[in-house]
Amino acid sequence: MSTQIRRVTVLGAGVLGSQIAFQTAFKGFDVVVYDIDDKALDKARERFDQLVATYTREVKGAADGEAAAARHRLALTADLGQAVADADLVIEAVPEILELKQEIYRKLASLAPAKTIFVTNSSTLLPSDLEDWTGRPDRFLALHFANRIWQFNTAEVMGTTDTDPKVYDDVVEFAKAIGMVPIELHKEKAGYVLNSLLVPFLAAAAELAAGGYADPVDVDKTWRIATGAPVGPFQIYDIVGLTTPYNVLAHGDAEAQKLAAWLKESYIDKGKLGLASGEGFYTYS
Amino acid sequence: MSTQIRRVTVLGAGVLGSQIAFQTAFKGFDVVVYDIDDKALDKARERFDQLVATYTREVKGAADGEAAAARHRLALTADLGQAVADADLVIEAVPEILELKQEIYRKLASLAPAKTIFVTNSSTLLPSDLEDWTGRPDRFLALHFANRIWQFNTAEVMGTTDTDPKVYDDVVEFAKAIGMVPIELHKEKAGYVLNSLLVPFLAAAAELAAGGYADPVDVDKTWRIATGAPVGPFQIYDIVGLTTPYNVLAHGDAEAQKLAAWLKESYIDKGKLGLASGEGFYTYS
Repeated sequence: MSTQIRRVTVLGAGVLGSQIAFQTAFKGFDVVVYDIDDKALDKARERFDQLVATYTREVKGAADGEAAAARHRLALTADLGQAVADADLVIEAVPEILELKQEIYRKLASLAPAKTIFVTNSSTLLPSDLEDWTGRPDRFLALHFANRIWQFNTAEVMGTTDTDPKVYDDVVEFAKAIGMVPIELHKEKAGYVLNSLLVPFLAAAAELAAGGYADPVDVDKTWRIATGAPVGPFQIYDIVGLTTPYNVLAHGDAEAQKLAAWLKESYIDKGKLGLASGEGFYTYS
Repeated sequence: MSTQIRRVTVLGAGVLGSQIAFQTAFKGFDVVVYDIDDKALDKARERFDQLVATYTREVKGAADGEAAAARHRLALTADLGQAVADADLVIEAVPEILELKQEIYRKLASLAPAKTIFVTNSSTLLPSDLEDWTGRPDRFLALHFANRIWQFNTAEVMGTTDTDPKVYDDVVEFAKAIGMVPIELHKEKAGYVLNSLLVPFLAAAAELAAGGYADPVDVDKTWRIATGAPVGPFQIYDIVGLTTPYNVLAHGDAEAQKLAAWLKESYIDKGKLGLASGEGFYTYS
């Protein structure tokens, strides 16, 4: 491993935080996982047990006890100071609430040693929204993972104008070391690369169906045949879950809000939330 | 075959017209191919010879003489009256110039029998732009094919409010009979389904690269990993050729025109036109 980063702390053991922590441990790092209280940590333990099973089943090289070994490299704590006391890298994956994130960075600023790099996994905030609270704008940037990290292994790397290029490069190397494909953004962009593509793509598909121009199944068929993709836009809605694109569209312009209303009335309000709920644009058994 | 359509005439033996005619003949129909003069017909003959070779190489079931047999079901003529005298279906694939298309429909209106259905393959015009010249708005609609028809076998079917639903259904059945996957549009939409998805998708990708946010290779990587697609947006640019998306963007709003200018200055003006020219966003050997 060419990364200088050895000791990693993950803040927040929610769906994505626990995946980031587990993947990092799976690649040989000792990881400290912080969450707010014993209840949250118990929930995290369940998530890690499930991840051992998932990795053993789905990840190449995980079958022969590697996933179980990764589990032993995870230490859980509800003590923030202890969690970050000797961290080279803190990966922040706490809920997407600006005040909550600012508060945790304010605490981290004094609790973590000067050497510690902070990265945020935030999907909806820019690192420049948070840097003033970090006490180290030069050692702060975004490192953005995707759900089902072991399969969708992109890590979008995005700094502010204050991020030290050397720190940026360290984080790129770290991303590689934990099996990610680093996607380097050269400047800040809301939505990073993936959502900058996905949001207009999914909106265009919704417009076709909501406007009564074509049926979702035909829209998907067209995309699959024309591009060779395994899935079309409405299959992507179902995989992602309709709630996330709904939230994005609901915060958009008037046209986007119309599409959000259509998603809500025609699908979400009827419990059709996508693959996870058994039905979305398609029905799953 | 459940279609009532037996005798098919294709007007215009350009790249796509010749593919449509050949695919129709390949599926067992006798096809009359019209083009304006002997020179155009000679060029068409070359295209058909190339298509025999392509089908023999690339299309399942075409190897054992089927492609050569299809060639014999094609009759070429520069006499428009003769071409359409007994046609059940006329597929119009003449150049994308409104006046040219209107002129040919004006002629067809009197030359073709009342039974003949007319379909336009136009990418950029709506059938309602043309219906007044057809003499039969109820028997007129769009049937839109994709380049490399044998591989990208969508046929987008789009009528006007005047199109007889029975005629629409006949054309859907015909599309199936010639091996297409019919994509039914319920009302007119510029760009049909495919370009309604592709144009905003390709624009979003261009914005990321033109704005200096991320490199094309990383944008493509992100899309491939996140969606499992074999190609990302810049690979699609290269396959389609940069000129077509350039033309679409150049006719768009101010933002789109900026992206068009970027495509032109950074790629097109340097001869980087995509796969066919050996270089676009990627270099090909």
